[in-house]
Amino acid sequence: MAEAIAPPYPTIRADGVAVTILDQRALPYTVAFRTLTSWQEVAEAIQTMAVRGAPLIGVSAAYGVALAMRAAADDSTLEKVLTALAATRPTAINLRWALARMKRRLQPLPPPIRADAAWQEAQAIQQEDAALCQAIGEAGLPWLIAAAKKRHGEAVRVLTHCNAGWVATCGIGTALAPIYLAHARGVAVSVWASETRPRNQGLITAWELGAAGIPVAVVADNAAAWLMAAGEVDLVIVGADRIAANGDVANKVGTALKAFAAHTYGIPFLVAAPASTFDPRAPDGMAIPIEDRGSEELTHTTVVDDAGAAQRARHYPTTVTPGPNPAFDVTPARWITALITEAGAISPPLAGAWAARQHTAKG
Amino acid sequence: MAEAIAPPYPTIRADGVAVTILDQRALPYTVAFRTLTSWQEVAEAIQTMAVRGAPLIGVSAAYGVALAMRAAADDSTLEKVLTALAATRPTAINLRWALARMKRRLQPLPPPIRADAAWQEAQAIQQEDAALCQAIGEAGLPWLIAAAKKRHGEAVRVLTHCNAGWVATCGIGTALAPIYLAHARGVAVSVWASETRPRNQGLITAWELGAAGIPVAVVADNAAAWLMAAGEVDLVIVGADRIAANGDVANKVGTALKAFAAHTYGIPFLVAAPASTFDPRAPDGMAIPIEDRGSEELTHTTVVDDAGAAQRARHYPTTVTPGPNPAFDVTPARWITALITEAGAISPPLAGAWAARQHTAKG
Repeated sequence: MAEAIAPPYPTIRADGVAVTILDQRALPYTVAFRTLTSWQEVAEAIQTMAVRGAPLIGVSAAYGVALAMRAAADDSTLEKVLTALAATRPTAINLRWALARMKRRLQPLPPPIRADAAWQEAQAIQQEDAALCQAIGEAGLPWLIAAAKKRHGEAVRVLTHCNAGWVATCGIGTALAPIYLAHARGVAVSVWASETRPRNQGLITAWELGAAGIPVAVVADNAAAWLMAAGEVDLVIVGADRIAANGDVANKVGTALKAFAAHTYGIPFLVAAPASTFDPRAPDGMAIPIEDRGSEELTHTTVVDDAGAAQRARHYPTTVTPGPNPAFDVTPARWITALITEAGAISPPLAGAWAARQHTAKG
Repeated sequence: MAEAIAPPYPTIRADGVAVTILDQRALPYTVAFRTLTSWQEVAEAIQTMAVRGAPLIGVSAAYGVALAMRAAADDSTLEKVLTALAATRPTAINLRWALARMKRRLQPLPPPIRADAAWQEAQAIQQEDAALCQAIGEAGLPWLIAAAKKRHGEAVRVLTHCNAGWVATCGIGTALAPIYLAHARGVAVSVWASETRPRNQGLITAWELGAAGIPVAVVADNAAAWLMAAGEVDLVIVGADRIAANGDVANKVGTALKAFAAHTYGIPFLVAAPASTFDPRAPDGMAIPIEDRGSEELTHTTVVDDAGAAQRARHYPTTVTPGPNPAFDVTPARWITALITEAGAISPPLAGAWAARQHTAKG
């Protein structure tokens, strides 16, 4: 159990004056970092998905508040910044959770000491996230070990969607955390990373798992039912952007389609996420706002030349009209086998009760 | 009922010496035609998907036989060409049906008159396909009219996958035939064309419907569950490449995911296809061979420059490994509301009995 799993790059670094992020828009083509020195730059980084991944968005927003407090720490600035950062992405609830935590910490303090407190609190959220990822990995690991037994030594084949790995967090990921732990502890595992159109975050998943030596291949989103029908999937694990009180899960668009298929073929479908992803005030998935990200993500795509240089190029001819581009969908609780949290596996119908208890305990 | 719906371009033209096809690999970026003068060129056009769409593949293969008979009409050539053309694509059964029909027609004839008979038979198959499309359209139309009543004058919103329109046939399509008829007869209809990664045939669907004045927008394949959950889909209509005796349907990969979602949200899911798509000898979907098309379709994509010129470009960085690329999946019969054929709507469990009767009547 002494394995030390460390991401090869920090997704976010902060030194009390500036915040440096791994620019995910360039991944997996280029590893590039961007230094942000104002809360507006943080807001823009979240909005344009230079930082993405529900846990990482929460941490980034917390640092955004810290940057703002360095510039001006009065009540009206605090209120304005909290509101503006909350508006950057409507679906992920960790963002709101992190901002609410910053508010609880900072509001009672006199403005002159808010800046230092803000940096400390943001750093605490960042460090806690790493521990949460580890705990989620431990909670999910038994599912991989159980699947491995059925596979008699052959690699367990996990299908995942989007990217819920180290790139999306400040630790070893959420959905990918049990996979990293399994690999480190000698449980053979291989991964199908679904492309995740329109932004193709599956390529990021393939990049990060491949770099860690875990066998991984990218498949078209459309291939999920075929893979399952052909007996090529033992387990599905995804992350979450918000979990309603009844256990409905908002996650990257396309997730629900995989859950329906997994149910049809009797394959366990796991959702891995920390307590901050649960929203007891959303009675069900219908209450979760779903972000539409506009059509450029459909009409354009990233291509790479022989030298490896990536660029955006038009993909649809101008005669073709793109439709809505929802960033998320809602998987009904009844298709979810278990919610994997830092406190262990939870049955989806108990999501609300568990989250309320967590929030009360922390509140 | 006097409307004349004619596709703007013929998908295939034959003059007794050569065959000219609409090159679908260039669509919807460019309208280009290719003239084929040997059966080998026809085989290559089918294999590379310069012609695609189950009905059109059947017609193309029939003309391939005709081209071969012009060059040499002996028994061993006939046998060799039938075998080679059948091997071009393993899943679509219309291909095999058309080749079996050509064999039945030509084998009893003396070689000197085979060439003319082959051209006539291929032409008959082509002309019949146009009539089949029209009949499928008439059989599907009541579903659109029923949906229109519930919409109280608002457009009926149909989701389709891949391209089963005029581009895929020698008439007005299969899945799109009821849509063209509805539009011509004043039933307001709009279409969600799902992208259909990895080859993006949804762009062809958008192109052909848009050109006909039917409102259409392309959505990511992943968006299907969200569209349905949001109440934005009244009906799903797709084509088919092979239908098993129990009503399981092999169609473009991703179809099954949409069927699962449609079932969850109580949306009718229709499969439109002619009798030649039914395979009574396949007891269920597991007996249908599924073609893997290799990884270039995943790793590369088509982009277009400002002048509208299209080219293939690398999409995945070379560090990312692509997985299998199945061209089809199997939708279980229980998720299909009805099979729409030239003889009307059929309940999926009756597929085998109906097909056996059709084949006997014709055989």
